[in-house]
Amino acid sequence: VTRPSRELAGIFPYLVSPVDASTGAVLEKPLRALVDHLIRQGVHGVSPLGSTGEFAYLDRDQKAEIVRIVVDEAAGRVPVVPGVSGFSTVDALRQAETCARLGADAIVLMLQSFFPVPPAGVVEYFTTVAQQSELPICLYANPGLTVDLPPPVVAELSHLPSIQYFKEASGNTGRILTVMNLVEDRLKMMSASAHIPLVVFQLGGVGWMAGPACLMPRTCVHLWELCQANQWDEGLALQRQMWRLNEIFQRYSLAACIKTGLQLQGFEVGDAIPPQKALGKDAVADIQGAIETLTRLEATL
Amino acid sequence: VTRPSRELAGIFPYLVSPVDASTGAVLEKPLRALVDHLIRQGVHGVSPLGSTGEFAYLDRDQKAEIVRIVVDEAAGRVPVVPGVSGFSTVDALRQAETCARLGADAIVLMLQSFFPVPPAGVVEYFTTVAQQSELPICLYANPGLTVDLPPPVVAELSHLPSIQYFKEASGNTGRILTVMNLVEDRLKMMSASAHIPLVVFQLGGVGWMAGPACLMPRTCVHLWELCQANQWDEGLALQRQMWRLNEIFQRYSLAACIKTGLQLQGFEVGDAIPPQKALGKDAVADIQGAIETLTRLEATL
Amino acid sequence: VTRPSRELAGIFPYLVSPVDASTGAVLEKPLRALVDHLIRQGVHGVSPLGSTGEFAYLDRDQKAEIVRIVVDEAAGRVPVVPGVSGFSTVDALRQAETCARLGADAIVLMLQSFFPVPPAGVVEYFTTVAQQSELPICLYANPGLTVDLPPPVVAELSHLPSIQYFKEASGNTGRILTVMNLVEDRLKMMSASAHIPLVVFQLGGVGWMAGPACLMPRTCVHLWELCQANQWDEGLALQRQMWRLNEIFQRYSLAACIKTGLQLQGFEVGDAIPPQKALGKDAVADIQGAIETLTRLEATL
Amino acid sequence: VTRPSRELAGIFPYLVSPVDASTGAVLEKPLRALVDHLIRQGVHGVSPLGSTGEFAYLDRDQKAEIVRIVVDEAAGRVPVVPGVSGFSTVDALRQAETCARLGADAIVLMLQSFFPVPPAGVVEYFTTVAQQSELPICLYANPGLTVDLPPPVVAELSHLPSIQYFKEASGNTGRILTVMNLVEDRLKMMSASAHIPLVVFQLGGVGWMAGPACLMPRTCVHLWELCQANQWDEGLALQRQMWRLNEIFQRYSLAACIKTGLQLQGFEVGDAIPPQKALGKDAVADIQGAIETLTRLEATL
Repeated sequence: VTRPSRELAGIFPYLVSPVDASTGAVLEKPLRALVDHLIRQGVHGVSPLGSTGEFAYLDRDQKAEIVRIVVDEAAGRVPVVPGVSGFSTVDALRQAETCARLGADAIVLMLQSFFPVPPAGVVEYFTTVAQQSELPICLYANPGLTVDLPPPVVAELSHLPSIQYFKEASGNTGRILTVMNLVEDRLKMMSASAHIPLVVFQLGGVGWMAGPACLMPRTCVHLWELCQANQWDEGLALQRQMWRLNEIFQRYSLAACIKTGLQLQGFEVGDAIPPQKALGKDAVADIQGAIETLTRLEATL
Repeated sequence: VTRPSRELAGIFPYLVSPVDASTGAVLEKPLRALVDHLIRQGVHGVSPLGSTGEFAYLDRDQKAEIVRIVVDEAAGRVPVVPGVSGFSTVDALRQAETCARLGADAIVLMLQSFFPVPPAGVVEYFTTVAQQSELPICLYANPGLTVDLPPPVVAELSHLPSIQYFKEASGNTGRILTVMNLVEDRLKMMSASAHIPLVVFQLGGVGWMAGPACLMPRTCVHLWELCQANQWDEGLALQRQMWRLNEIFQRYSLAACIKTGLQLQGFEVGDAIPPQKALGKDAVADIQGAIETLTRLEATL
Repeated sequence: VTRPSRELAGIFPYLVSPVDASTGAVLEKPLRALVDHLIRQGVHGVSPLGSTGEFAYLDRDQKAEIVRIVVDEAAGRVPVVPGVSGFSTVDALRQAETCARLGADAIVLMLQSFFPVPPAGVVEYFTTVAQQSELPICLYANPGLTVDLPPPVVAELSHLPSIQYFKEASGNTGRILTVMNLVEDRLKMMSASAHIPLVVFQLGGVGWMAGPACLMPRTCVHLWELCQANQWDEGLALQRQMWRLNEIFQRYSLAACIKTGLQLQGFEVGDAIPPQKALGKDAVADIQGAIETLTRLEATL
Repeated sequence: VTRPSRELAGIFPYLVSPVDASTGAVLEKPLRALVDHLIRQGVHGVSPLGSTGEFAYLDRDQKAEIVRIVVDEAAGRVPVVPGVSGFSTVDALRQAETCARLGADAIVLMLQSFFPVPPAGVVEYFTTVAQQSELPICLYANPGLTVDLPPPVVAELSHLPSIQYFKEASGNTGRILTVMNLVEDRLKMMSASAHIPLVVFQLGGVGWMAGPACLMPRTCVHLWELCQANQWDEGLALQRQMWRLNEIFQRYSLAACIKTGLQLQGFEVGDAIPPQKALGKDAVADIQGAIETLTRLEATL
């Protein structure tokens, strides 16, 4: 039974996961501070446990703790859409149940693989979770990090009622148009930061889920509002400026980069989970520069 | 403190992990039956939770349960050498402690990655576990599945006292010679099934850890004994026959293939963990043929 | 000395190269027929010896013969922009000189590699040709087929006066925006068929160079005209229909596919150059279907 | 009609191609000096126009000139076995005819690809050349540089009478055993420098074709002779020393590295063909060190 659900649309920052490096304990205070800050800046939802959220480095208990904190802090102000990703179907089902039990509004569903999974296995995984999930599902594939979902597989899965969104992260914008042609109005498209969000909005996309939105929530919201108002020329001018920042953020390992940027903005979210390493001096300087550019940009909005 | 350890040498089958597909419960009976069978066939150790053991599809509790059962069933007859693999250092440490507590004799240590890990992070992960581990460690890298360990990294890690073995699985035999030149006698080499084991033995390797040894333990032991006795011509003749079987086993997804073969041999180990799929008819027929060839071959030993 | 040059803008079909399979002789008649047909359909230029033109399968004499025929048949009606691609700098220089001598209007310059070429070598190759070329140059990189040109390399090369255009073919539309941010107005962007051309036009691109335009010149020209007139809604509706055709054309080996489609349209251009193979029955049926859809579509324009 | 042919066995250095960087003219004098030197050092044949010979950077005229010079200089003292590699079947046929006409003893046949070639096209290419070639053929595949020849394709081609040797360069030594099992005595195996040659000799291989043999011909010949005399222990000790040198040579772009080493040994072969670059200072120092080690090693043989 799918619960009556809140429509997902707009800017959804992918939250980082602040944890103690040596014990793995979730750091509740900076996580709450970040969630509250983003909501006050106007974002339309928050998404913990995405790639930026280092879900691959967390066990089931850590994931549940993070969902619990984010839902509690959001307190219904915006939808909470955690990532669910498993190697085994059994594990994904347990995570999805936990998200529903803890009050999430939807999930972003991914599949990881060790041995290659044949297409029938991929379809089975997403179908099994979709049939048992109480929550609406956003399909997500980030080729190279999680199992790719080629357009025909997305089209097949789009017929399941709980599967309602698709987040494409290959960077190949043509694939979004291909999927749109195949699924008609059964799925809504979400941009990842690998795409130019303005382009995805022009093609009909309904939102942007991405880690860099943690660092520039107001700018992202402003871009979204310009596009909603059909102010495409202003939108493109802003998008070009934002893209330079996006490039800097994409130059470095995603979670480490966003955590570094947030620390520079005063959020005590710690470094990437070991054995990932904190960024080096040059990278920190680059990100510092980007944050400063951003601050100047936000002052003009 | 590293405990006085048993020398690892010879044939170490990589065990499959029999689990209930819908609940994830470990199937104790077939796992015990397999361990006992292999030891009675003369293998020199058993290695649960390798790639063949589908470790990537199991959570911490399932892994601990498997180690507990294998150690109990082996009952000291041969060393038990489980795989330990984590994305985070914290998780690997916990797994290693569990292996030590449950009575394993050594561990095979791997690193998985989601975001790329810089070399300093790779060294830190292995060093941290090695410094805190009570058990001897066999380094293991299977490029494409786990984080690669280039020869200079292996050489650096070889100076840690608990790191005593290296299992190379790239299939590039020259890399074994490169590592041998670099580490001198600080590490002993183990062959993976991606290499021709006879060649690795000729170069000085001390054993073979591999999934296919589950299906042909006596033949593997016989090859080992021929090489130990310097009967290289007979060894090569046997190796060429075994290689044809190895090829068939390598043609299909590893865990699914070994589980299928064991089922054909009467072990109720079940299929690969979903969303992996059981093999199709043609594959089963291929493996059936290989098992029959093998049975005829073993009759001649 | 760069000659006064004709501006390149609009639709530039990448021509196929009709050659006799057993002798390699260029088939002049169908090549002339194709060029004349495309110009009469309204295309804004023609580009022989691109990927679609199988340049990699042709020697220097065959390439010169093709340029000679295309320039002669175009007879000044539209610009002729041949591809120039070499492994060695010496070879590329000779090809560029030949194009200038035979009356081409510009060249599309690529680099192939056998051993990896360091960035300094890449810059040197393009710089050497650019400094000695009488013709304006469109940089072209098709990652996986020719040497990639990362945005900073394009930015460096954009300061050379004869380098005036850039055709990006990675499919990653964000890279176009990245380059635009870096090169400002020093380079004009051309879309490859790996991108959604309408999106590239919206971002400021000045044209579309692609093989499929051989099969649907009028539709391509119509899309271009809608975008030029800022009729973006009609443009997007047409683009979505065209994208389905583009997908079919991208499903099969490029040159074989376009040659097959042209044969179905009555042009005797022959099959792909051996050892490439003619397409199989199913592929021909798919392309036949696409051509029929296209014919119906063109009837409505 | 295949001519009565000389058996190929032993050490076959892959020759570099000395050419003038700005004109592409073949430098006859250093090429003759190198060929004469290698033959006087005892090599069993010479192989121009392999990967080390930068064939991909040369046109048909340059290739013919090189074959002419090498055949003339060898003057029947050892067999000359040039590489033949084409993108198109027509081009490979012309090259093979030229080799036969100029007096080569056999050819090493490769296929390059731009668009992926289906297996039937690969078989057709090799079959067409094999059926029209007067010379014995050594199949050669260097995955990543030339089209891979999977074992079943090699097995199919092994039935053609002129196809008599196979040089495997993937570095995966198991593939050699796989092919040996499939082709029985129809093909003889040649080692590439990606393999440990001693291992290939132990498995039954008949020779070693490789660029580094240009720099250490006497050592290579000594290894070959030890293996021929079944002195495997001495062979392995020498092989381990040689492998350290091989690693240094493999660390750098192949042709640039061998050309640099030869210059350090006094042969005026020039640098790699532009846009490839001469090696940097550190690389030259590394190679200088390797040459010195080698000189000391050769003094002990």
